[in-house]
Amino acid sequence: TVAACFHRSSSSSSSTPLDALFPRHEDFSKRHIGPNGQEQSAMLEYLGLESLEELTKKAVPGDILLDRDLDLPEAIGEYALLKELEDIGSKNEMYRTFMGMGYHGTLTPTTIIRNIFENPGWTTQYTPYQAELAQGRLESLLNYQTMIADLMGLDVSNASLLDEATAAAEAMTLCQRHTKRKKFFIDMRCHPQTISVVKTRASVLNIEVVEGDWRELDLSEGDFSGVLVQYPDTDGHVSDFSDLITKAKESKTLVVGCTDLLAVTVLRPPGDIGMDIAIGTNQRFGVPLGYGGPHAGFFACRQNFLRTIPGRVVGVTRDSGGRPAYRLALQTREQHIRRDKATSNICTAQALLANMSAMYAIYHGPHGLKEIGQRIHNGALILAEGIKQAGHALHSSKFFDTVKFLPTTGQQHIRDKAIAHKINLRYFQDGTVAIALDETVGHQDLTDLLNIVDSPATPEEIAQQMGPNPQSKLLAPESIHRRLSSYLTHPVFNSHHSETQLVRYMKQLENKDLSLVHSMISLGSCTMKLNSTTEMMPCTWKEFSSLHPFVPREQALGYHHLLDELEQLLCEITGYDEICFQPNSGAQGEYAGLRTIMAYHQSTGEEQRNMCLIPVSAHGTNPASAQMAGMKITPINVDKSGAVDMAHMAKMAEKFKDTLACFMITYPSTHGVFDKDIRELCDMVHHYGGQVYLDGANMNAQVGICRPGDFGSDVSHLNLHKTFCIPHGGGGPGAGPIGVKAHLRPFLPSHPVVPPLGTFGPGTASFGSVSSAPFGSSSILPISWGYIKMMGPKGLRHASQVAILNANYMSRRLTGHFNTLFTNEAGFCAHEFIMDVRPFKKTANIEATDVAKRLQDYGFHAPTLSWPVTGTLMIEPTESEDKDELDRLCDALIAIRKEIQDIEEGRMDRDVNPLKMAPHIQLDIINSKWNRPYTMEMGAFPASFVTPATKFWPTVARIDDAYGDQNLMCTCPPMSSYSSDENGVEERAAV
Amino acid sequence: TVAACFHRSSSSSSSTPLDALFPRHEDFSKRHIGPNGQEQSAMLEYLGLESLEELTKKAVPGDILLDRDLDLPEAIGEYALLKELEDIGSKNEMYRTFMGMGYHGTLTPTTIIRNIFENPGWTTQYTPYQAELAQGRLESLLNYQTMIADLMGLDVSNASLLDEATAAAEAMTLCQRHTKRKKFFIDMRCHPQTISVVKTRASVLNIEVVEGDWRELDLSEGDFSGVLVQYPDTDGHVSDFSDLITKAKESKTLVVGCTDLLAVTVLRPPGDIGMDIAIGTNQRFGVPLGYGGPHAGFFACRQNFLRTIPGRVVGVTRDSGGRPAYRLALQTREQHIRRDKATSNICTAQALLANMSAMYAIYHGPHGLKEIGQRIHNGALILAEGIKQAGHALHSSKFFDTVKFLPTTGQQHIRDKAIAHKINLRYFQDGTVAIALDETVGHQDLTDLLNIVDSPATPEEIAQQMGPNPQSKLLAPESIHRRLSSYLTHPVFNSHHSETQLVRYMKQLENKDLSLVHSMISLGSCTMKLNSTTEMMPCTWKEFSSLHPFVPREQALGYHHLLDELEQLLCEITGYDEICFQPNSGAQGEYAGLRTIMAYHQSTGEEQRNMCLIPVSAHGTNPASAQMAGMKITPINVDKSGAVDMAHMAKMAEKFKDTLACFMITYPSTHGVFDKDIRELCDMVHHYGGQVYLDGANMNAQVGICRPGDFGSDVSHLNLHKTFCIPHGGGGPGAGPIGVKAHLRPFLPSHPVVPPLGTFGPGTASFGSVSSAPFGSSSILPISWGYIKMMGPKGLRHASQVAILNANYMSRRLTGHFNTLFTNEAGFCAHEFIMDVRPFKKTANIEATDVAKRLQDYGFHAPTLSWPVTGTLMIEPTESEDKDELDRLCDALIAIRKEIQDIEEGRMDRDVNPLKMAPHIQLDIINSKWNRPYTMEMGAFPASFVTPATKFWPTVARIDDAYGDQNLMCTCPPMSSYSSDENGVEERAAV
Repeated sequence: TVAACFHRSSSSSSSTPLDALFPRHEDFSKRHIGPNGQEQSAMLEYLGLESLEELTKKAVPGDILLDRDLDLPEAIGEYALLKELEDIGSKNEMYRTFMGMGYHGTLTPTTIIRNIFENPGWTTQYTPYQAELAQGRLESLLNYQTMIADLMGLDVSNASLLDEATAAAEAMTLCQRHTKRKKFFIDMRCHPQTISVVKTRASVLNIEVVEGDWRELDLSEGDFSGVLVQYPDTDGHVSDFSDLITKAKESKTLVVGCTDLLAVTVLRPPGDIGMDIAIGTNQRFGVPLGYGGPHAGFFACRQNFLRTIPGRVVGVTRDSGGRPAYRLALQTREQHIRRDKATSNICTAQALLANMSAMYAIYHGPHGLKEIGQRIHNGALILAEGIKQAGHALHSSKFFDTVKFLPTTGQQHIRDKAIAHKINLRYFQDGTVAIALDETVGHQDLTDLLNIVDSPATPEEIAQQMGPNPQSKLLAPESIHRRLSSYLTHPVFNSHHSETQLVRYMKQLENKDLSLVHSMISLGSCTMKLNSTTEMMPCTWKEFSSLHPFVPREQALGYHHLLDELEQLLCEITGYDEICFQPNSGAQGEYAGLRTIMAYHQSTGEEQRNMCLIPVSAHGTNPASAQMAGMKITPINVDKSGAVDMAHMAKMAEKFKDTLACFMITYPSTHGVFDKDIRELCDMVHHYGGQVYLDGANMNAQVGICRPGDFGSDVSHLNLHKTFCIPHGGGGPGAGPIGVKAHLRPFLPSHPVVPPLGTFGPGTASFGSVSSAPFGSSSILPISWGYIKMMGPKGLRHASQVAILNANYMSRRLTGHFNTLFTNEAGFCAHEFIMDVRPFKKTANIEATDVAKRLQDYGFHAPTLSWPVTGTLMIEPTESEDKDELDRLCDALIAIRKEIQDIEEGRMDRDVNPLKMAPHIQLDIINSKWNRPYTMEMGAFPASFVTPATKFWPTVARIDDAYGDQNLMCTCPPMSSYSSDENGVEERAAV
Repeated sequence: TVAACFHRSSSSSSSTPLDALFPRHEDFSKRHIGPNGQEQSAMLEYLGLESLEELTKKAVPGDILLDRDLDLPEAIGEYALLKELEDIGSKNEMYRTFMGMGYHGTLTPTTIIRNIFENPGWTTQYTPYQAELAQGRLESLLNYQTMIADLMGLDVSNASLLDEATAAAEAMTLCQRHTKRKKFFIDMRCHPQTISVVKTRASVLNIEVVEGDWRELDLSEGDFSGVLVQYPDTDGHVSDFSDLITKAKESKTLVVGCTDLLAVTVLRPPGDIGMDIAIGTNQRFGVPLGYGGPHAGFFACRQNFLRTIPGRVVGVTRDSGGRPAYRLALQTREQHIRRDKATSNICTAQALLANMSAMYAIYHGPHGLKEIGQRIHNGALILAEGIKQAGHALHSSKFFDTVKFLPTTGQQHIRDKAIAHKINLRYFQDGTVAIALDETVGHQDLTDLLNIVDSPATPEEIAQQMGPNPQSKLLAPESIHRRLSSYLTHPVFNSHHSETQLVRYMKQLENKDLSLVHSMISLGSCTMKLNSTTEMMPCTWKEFSSLHPFVPREQALGYHHLLDELEQLLCEITGYDEICFQPNSGAQGEYAGLRTIMAYHQSTGEEQRNMCLIPVSAHGTNPASAQMAGMKITPINVDKSGAVDMAHMAKMAEKFKDTLACFMITYPSTHGVFDKDIRELCDMVHHYGGQVYLDGANMNAQVGICRPGDFGSDVSHLNLHKTFCIPHGGGGPGAGPIGVKAHLRPFLPSHPVVPPLGTFGPGTASFGSVSSAPFGSSSILPISWGYIKMMGPKGLRHASQVAILNANYMSRRLTGHFNTLFTNEAGFCAHEFIMDVRPFKKTANIEATDVAKRLQDYGFHAPTLSWPVTGTLMIEPTESEDKDELDRLCDALIAIRKEIQDIEEGRMDRDVNPLKMAPHIQLDIINSKWNRPYTMEMGAFPASFVTPATKFWPTVARIDDAYGDQNLMCTCPPMSSYSSDENGVEERAAV
């Protein structure tokens, strides 16, 4: 019948006659899920199964299966969603906000928004571990590092941290590691959120944080590891730290300066002053406020700390042909290697945001940045003059952009006038007021601000009085605060100032990188699925992107509506009772969850409970986070099938019954299997007084199928950038909110400025705070919200089932060529599987890396390499990849297996062969001197589906990691290091 | 001094003390103009000049120089512009509009908006004349043609026309050419704007248009060339044309069907009914309404008309290696070849919009499209039932989506209720009302509409009554209107239904095409300059994109504010008194301008004035447009320097003094020179009673320097897509508004539905209308408005000067290698120059095409080839390209000259050499059997700046045009035509 064809929406349960004739909307889940019904049937048939339901029962233990639909709203369509989001956005009030505190209005160049932030070619890449096909964002991150190091007057920078406060905490622990001293000083004029995060972090690390006035600090005992001071400080004042630094040097105390990227375009930077480490946020370099994030925290230091710098660092090395190449340096330091010896659980960076800020600096150049800084300072001088003329008392005469004053007319008077102008200022409890200017401020803003402070003169009149050379305490020629050193002298910062130039540079870098716009990225445990346009759209709407995180709640009602709703949705999906959005990454979520558990044990008088049991197969972040949360760690064995060794577990739980704090487990397991004993495990932990932390990395196999909160878990983090469609951004942003059962609710993170959970501070139950912003990376949460709303309960379950189907189909197709390491008793994996390539080391001198690199020649990003089992590859196809794409990857792997066989059987050289030489780049292939024992065609076009029309070319040959780590260079290399035929752009830039 | 560095804005004339300390905004002109001050100085020095002013005086005749700044508002910054645009946009009221008439609400898939419409990789390409580096958009246009031909049930389609009405006019002239008959019938129930354009076009072409009721048409005389009927007609009714078609066949009269893309997903298409030609608009296939455009008009026909089909047609051919390849077919038919023998002046297509609609069809697939069509029809059935139940009289029971009725309660009652709901309906003069449903309509809309018509039942109740199989007169099994034939069966329409699939397909095509994101496109006379993001942004804001062109003016106040302001700006720039925005392309502007001139002559009683003098160097569209405007044409010679031969001109003007209608000239000339005699020429024309039409294609050299309206021109069209930054979109959209002096004002185009210029119709002065939409492509006009506002008077003049500087710099750098054909007496060219390569035919067997194709190997799109002088290349660098890019192109050309020298001097083979073999593709280069007399490196990487990191690879080798034209195939070729190693995607799609 005519009507029959309208039942498109698999998720419309209540089909009225009108719905049948006139469906409400198109089914988004069909856009999100790659294989269509026909393909799903074909794959099920291949597996000998009747239906997705049968597959689910084979793959998932019966005792945890959810026996009902998720109680979520029915799916809505894409356009209805956008309409709803517009309505929600309109509830956020667009005041002009001059509150400062580390968050400032900024003008993101529109070409950067469109060609990076809104471009899947920049947002959908993975962290650049496979450097050969990631030279674009690696170059951009190196630009970022160079920018930060230059601006700070220091030697090196990392590739970004989660935010400013996290950077401060990381600086504190670096000082401790370096000096082995237990005390750390933090100046009281740092931003309150920074102080809070630092204190929270220290509180379980045997670090004594002293908060006070640096002018009264006595370093003579030599017992402080470091001192953290800020300039401009939270009051806007710029101090002269000469004495402090002299004393610090004498006592071998490290000095950490928290500062502002724009301020140091005109002010002496931390390095020039003599500080050892500089931290801060990149937000005002073109990164939208977004009600708190995501932004990138920066971290720069002197060369001697380079090898202990936290987080990722991009470095320069060479490729197998001796050509310069970029890659992540010092990867052996990363948390996934060090596990419980880790000094930090940092892995997610804020790559996308770091790249945006680097492009902002490239577009403006050093001269343009200085103009912006100077302009803002001039505005502040005008404003301060008006405040003075109005008779108010200025807090300081040494300010960059933030003018604080005690109004003679009373704070309320100022506040009333400001509200009438729809302007937010910062109001202190002592009656003072601060106004922080930024790049967006125009003449009308200055006029309004002077009006608010009752200035007798207009901006024009004050400018007239000041003349062309206004008196600036900071920037006068004789001022010790004036910046003398140059910065951003590298050609890359002096070559792309027209829009045409910048667009070409951004596109050129984009085209060096393999992303989801090219082919599937089958990274096990990373869930590289579709990040749909509709989900992404609100991120750049001003109603979501331009809100300061500390505006009064009544101006952010749209955000709170969305946060509340997302919390309800996620609670229903997980079976938890409350969600906390503050953690900015999965690892930070782990940390927050474990601290919550510890606070809970303390509240019940069992503070001795500090033992964390972790299977040896866990994500490396698990033990790292536990260590940071002040726990002790005992590894639990796994059996041959990869499941937790129940006997060992029972023994350890019994052994530590008095100190058991928690058991940390990933589910489905890191081996890609739904272990059958999960309920029993949880019961056992509870029996011995512990809590269960279920790592949510693999939630993509569970949504709609089972709920951690139902089968015994007490807390999980959710990687919204995995299961819930936030793009990976080439290595961040991430979002790692945690869900908890009701008994843990009182102990969740809070915030010193915007308490999300009742009261905050000593005496309250919350363990502290983990991020600068109260709700973490608020502006990307609409992505996950939109995904859930558009998929609906049936679509979400369907997605999980297809994710499991895709993995099992691939595993089965590879059978006979590669061994899948782990399956359950019925022979099924979950949503990912581990493919064994270890035997080929012996038979053909081929290692997992060789297979990974050879896959690049076939147009694919490698699966997860050597984790959780060394020498293997873990494949997670996700539900968004269609059968054809799965078949292509299988075909590539099977073809590679045949290439290995050629080596095994002596038809191909063991040292010079397509695998060992992979990846093949144009410079190697298009070479008249080609003399390898295989053809150039075999190098470049190894399969029929690899054609020039679709060929993705890596731009450097295999990276030499060891060379790079031995010869560390982590800022843009000088032009002389490039020969003219290897990097035309850089050469052009230098002209 | 501190303040000194703030004088960034070269265009801020009134620098107050506040401006000095605190500039209002960044100078956009520095983002738009490529070379910075230093580079400009270096180029001036190279030319032996002191300043841009000196250059201007050397290049431009003193007697036309503007001796003042343009009287335009000072430049504003990018963010202020966007703010202003928001304010303007908010004046457009967002009613729900169900007026139909060829314009319908549509849901553009968001991924198509972001990855095509907002992506410079898709918007900044040129028309795909250089097919080897344009295979992406050529494939997409072939998809479009296949989609149109399939849906129409006809054999072939062109690659789009300007709009539906233009397509109708083109169909009429095709009928005339084919049958040699002078009468053409148009049914009275076609949309009024279609009737108007057809009649206007016919009125000077010796075609008698009969408008009437097709049921009463007598074809027995055999004197009608064709019949144009529409279904659904403008009243929504679907007629049975069987009798008409039988009679037409008997009398050898052609039948043209105007129809609707969505309707034919369920209704019998024109081809199946027996019609010969089908036309319409692609708008409702995902192209935003945009207050009238740009949209693509479609044109499909039977195979036997293929060689006379108007406009561009993409066809399949083979490359030099015998591999399948796409290219523009039948180019020898194009207007620039046929000149005054042209049957159409069509050159600009609507490529970008055609591509969007093709992607829309690919995303939905045939099944999805049918569902959309059926759903809308069901909605109309429900609505009609409600109307019936309310007691109103239905106009017809055979409707697809548009329900017309005579309300028993009076039209005003319905109108009042509709306005209360903020809904626009169509109101006829006879008291009837029509409601046209579309894809965007939801349950609430149906509810509101039923409420407006006083339906006693709700949609739910009506659906309940109807049951699952509603009675449809059109789609019942026995209906002759029901579509039986299948469509969109090609794999490309059945393979990309998930967002992941579609994004990869769009990106894959994008990456086959060279666009401005890769390198400069130095097309003489085409002005491929920066299309900045900020200028482009409003095009996709709903306040501009979702307005129906026929809404009441008071709902479009934002648009009218913008149109009025843009008119003022353009008048000041050109020296004209009025601007008409209706023409959708430069050629259409020419036509409109010439018709305006003819109407003027008629008004003064000199209708015998019909002679148009045109220099032989003119754009080919000039004579074609004159021919279409009913003029006679006399060519005027040019002298050796390329300037108009004044003696010949004087002779001809004298000779035709009684019939002289107009002189058409391009200025600066098509030879790239500011002729010194332009004033004298204009005076001469006026002396003999003629009007001057100045072709505005080269306005980019004049803005701010001289004004056509000042030195004697009466009318010009302005290519907003050249001088005023609308992107070329890979072959459209364009915009060709005309400016006229005051005396021509009364004769400008008008519109039958929305008169832009007072009254319309017989007896009024306007010559008629040229486009479906009253203001042409309204939604892209903000681009030009934004450009002018952000550049300001100084920035605009500066841009023109740098455009002239860049051209003269390149010309000088190439001296000694290539001869510049034309300069003025002082040795300077204007903003472009012609580079001679004709001598190499004799010396080295090398032609201009070989140089053009070899440039692809160097990463460049060829300059304009063989126009206006055969065998030459015309280079226009524009102001947006920096010195480094100019130098790269010069380096490439000089290197190619050396390659030619190698042939000349016998060091390289005359037949097999890098030029003749160009472009080099991967399949040729990466080939173990390489045996050419030069290295593969020389083929692929001919210069140090051509590196793998930046290499742009053409995806097919040199196109065989002759083969394609002999073996015409203009729809997607079957899969079997591809061998598996040559087109992996298509192969995948077929799986």
